[in-house]
Amino acid sequence: MAVGLYPAENLKAVAGVSLAAGSAGIYRKKRDDLVLVGIEEGASVTAVFTRNSFAAAPVVIAKRHLTTGPDIRYCLINAGNANAGMGNKGIDDALETCKSVAHYATCPAESILPFSTGVIGMDLPVAKINSAIPGLLASLQPDSWGSCAQAIMTTDTVSKGISRQLSLDGTTVTITGIAKGSGMIRPDMATMLAFIATDAAIPRDLLDTALKEAVSRSFNRICVDGDMSTNDACLLIASGKAGHEPITSNNEKSYCLFLEALEEVCTYLAMAIVRDGEGASKFISINVVSCRDKDECLKIAYSIATSPLVKTAMFACDPNWGRILAAVGYAGIPELDINRVRIDLNDVCIVRNGARAVEYSEEAGVAVMSEDEITITVDLGRGDSEDTVWTCDFSHDYVRINAEYRS
Amino acid sequence: MAVGLYPAENLKAVAGVSLAAGSAGIYRKKRDDLVLVGIEEGASVTAVFTRNSFAAAPVVIAKRHLTTGPDIRYCLINAGNANAGMGNKGIDDALETCKSVAHYATCPAESILPFSTGVIGMDLPVAKINSAIPGLLASLQPDSWGSCAQAIMTTDTVSKGISRQLSLDGTTVTITGIAKGSGMIRPDMATMLAFIATDAAIPRDLLDTALKEAVSRSFNRICVDGDMSTNDACLLIASGKAGHEPITSNNEKSYCLFLEALEEVCTYLAMAIVRDGEGASKFISINVVSCRDKDECLKIAYSIATSPLVKTAMFACDPNWGRILAAVGYAGIPELDINRVRIDLNDVCIVRNGARAVEYSEEAGVAVMSEDEITITVDLGRGDSEDTVWTCDFSHDYVRINAEYRS
Repeated sequence: MAVGLYPAENLKAVAGVSLAAGSAGIYRKKRDDLVLVGIEEGASVTAVFTRNSFAAAPVVIAKRHLTTGPDIRYCLINAGNANAGMGNKGIDDALETCKSVAHYATCPAESILPFSTGVIGMDLPVAKINSAIPGLLASLQPDSWGSCAQAIMTTDTVSKGISRQLSLDGTTVTITGIAKGSGMIRPDMATMLAFIATDAAIPRDLLDTALKEAVSRSFNRICVDGDMSTNDACLLIASGKAGHEPITSNNEKSYCLFLEALEEVCTYLAMAIVRDGEGASKFISINVVSCRDKDECLKIAYSIATSPLVKTAMFACDPNWGRILAAVGYAGIPELDINRVRIDLNDVCIVRNGARAVEYSEEAGVAVMSEDEITITVDLGRGDSEDTVWTCDFSHDYVRINAEYRS
Repeated sequence: MAVGLYPAENLKAVAGVSLAAGSAGIYRKKRDDLVLVGIEEGASVTAVFTRNSFAAAPVVIAKRHLTTGPDIRYCLINAGNANAGMGNKGIDDALETCKSVAHYATCPAESILPFSTGVIGMDLPVAKINSAIPGLLASLQPDSWGSCAQAIMTTDTVSKGISRQLSLDGTTVTITGIAKGSGMIRPDMATMLAFIATDAAIPRDLLDTALKEAVSRSFNRICVDGDMSTNDACLLIASGKAGHEPITSNNEKSYCLFLEALEEVCTYLAMAIVRDGEGASKFISINVVSCRDKDECLKIAYSIATSPLVKTAMFACDPNWGRILAAVGYAGIPELDINRVRIDLNDVCIVRNGARAVEYSEEAGVAVMSEDEITITVDLGRGDSEDTVWTCDFSHDYVRINAEYRS
């Protein structure tokens, strides 16, 4: 049951990028589970990946092809199988699927990027995937973003996608992105797959800078369960087909406008992942202000965001704010003067000067906790730094979903 | 539903220490919720406490009295109210109860240690507690350990206690300990209350050394949910009444024997807290071996022990070992060569050389995961260091218990 989230619809085509979704029979139940993305020659392509030491085979291959390969021409994405924890067999399997795309599309295997999401530790069904590739190649269309957003879902309940347009030198530029992710979500390369394309003209090094900036303030600020996946990736394609004067430096106004729109797309998709967090019934923003530095803000925010006790209290609409206070207290902030700490739930002050606010009432607490969207504001009263992290609650359904995941 | 844990029974009296449990009406439902411990003059008393910045008022007072006060003569422990997050009011309330004991017992208030456990952020019912004190003082008995173990329970389902005896110079020395704790459990002053007494003769500085050593390998190696309480404390009383030659140095054989027995008591109580972890259906030992140092062992062990995905898979008896592998991968071990990593569940090898073991079968995985007690062994193959952490699974009942805690 996603919180304030609607399926990806009316996604705008991006000139130079075409997509197709189909079924390779990876899931026992018939559904689309394979996506091919075609990229016209001359595009800039960049990506950020998981930092998990057990990075999945497709992550290893995609990084290699991005670093040493020719221009990227296709992305092949499957749901239902992560192709992770499989050693050299996994690497070989991922390469086989790249070779298959390369064979049918007549291009080098190194111009293909593979992506996988699903259960860890199972053999990738290479034959099934390869036999579905010709059909996908034949049906690539610029307007298939919506069906592809659906095909990459695993425990997601709602497909996730967004388009933004901006004007550069009077030319309309489009950015469209889709994402999947619901569990195994934590900061530092938010644990999900996201595919974003734009027709902006921007060289790869600048595109890379823009992606890293946008991700640091969006996908790297979300947390569902604190687990970091083996398969995370966020891909950004810039086809250059919009027709505006190419962006050449990050000092230009056009770069700033582009980055702003890109960050909007990333933030929407990042929030969408939290709104559809496994079993989520609440969307929680944790706003930490008046800290000495960002590091303090994030320590406190993640201490709260990963506390099972805070998250179960949120689920129960129980204003058991002592659990928030405890999570602030164990965040490991040096020389924390608790007498300066203030905590608010939306507009209800619960803690002032380190103790229960005098005007706080249980009724006010219950009222604010029963809302679907809650902002927890923690004020340390000792600096100018602030930051925000988004998370969700911890429900019966989280346990049910993850206990039954493979059955 | 505790895993392999039986109520505290047949606890042995410790000469020089007497106890009483009674009801102060802190809980709505009538039950024992207040304990008084009397300590004869001349005992050594030491304790370790939570490192949470929002340490509860009783923790602040107990630390102060231990540091600057005269000999400790009484401990007053209540369940049902943590007296935390209450600012100066909380401090005043805790002091009031110490003064009340001091008044009736005719001793300085500074010789009383207060302890509280329960809901954070509620006014301590001082009047109710104080009116129960004369009755407790009148009923202090050396053999009341069992009823006191029950009276300090909150979400615990089974009372926790143990006695061990050892021989020093042919004299029998007794160590008896009780503990409470079930949720808000994480390493670094394991989040619980424990009260241990011995009739050994040992000066306070050596007693302190012994307690810190024993705690580091017992209470500081457990994890239920990763939340650190505001109220943790582990108290150790040595009455000196056994009659053996006093221990005077940590080089003596008698110190080693005493430490060994003390560590047994602490380990039993620490494991008991995990076995009775909120909603626990499995007792999980995480054994990390062949690391470069302890820090590496513990990073990996806690990464697994705090992973909601691993814990829900354990609850479901689902050998979804990819989640264990992912948790090893995001533990932040520098230069981890995944090709040397091996993971076993009890005697079933699931990962060898960083990939699924060739002989692994789903049947073997399901069989081992359906056991009540599971040891996860992670071998990094790069050093001689090893360490163990104990945790439990994450069940529907964890969410239910913590969602309904205050209702």
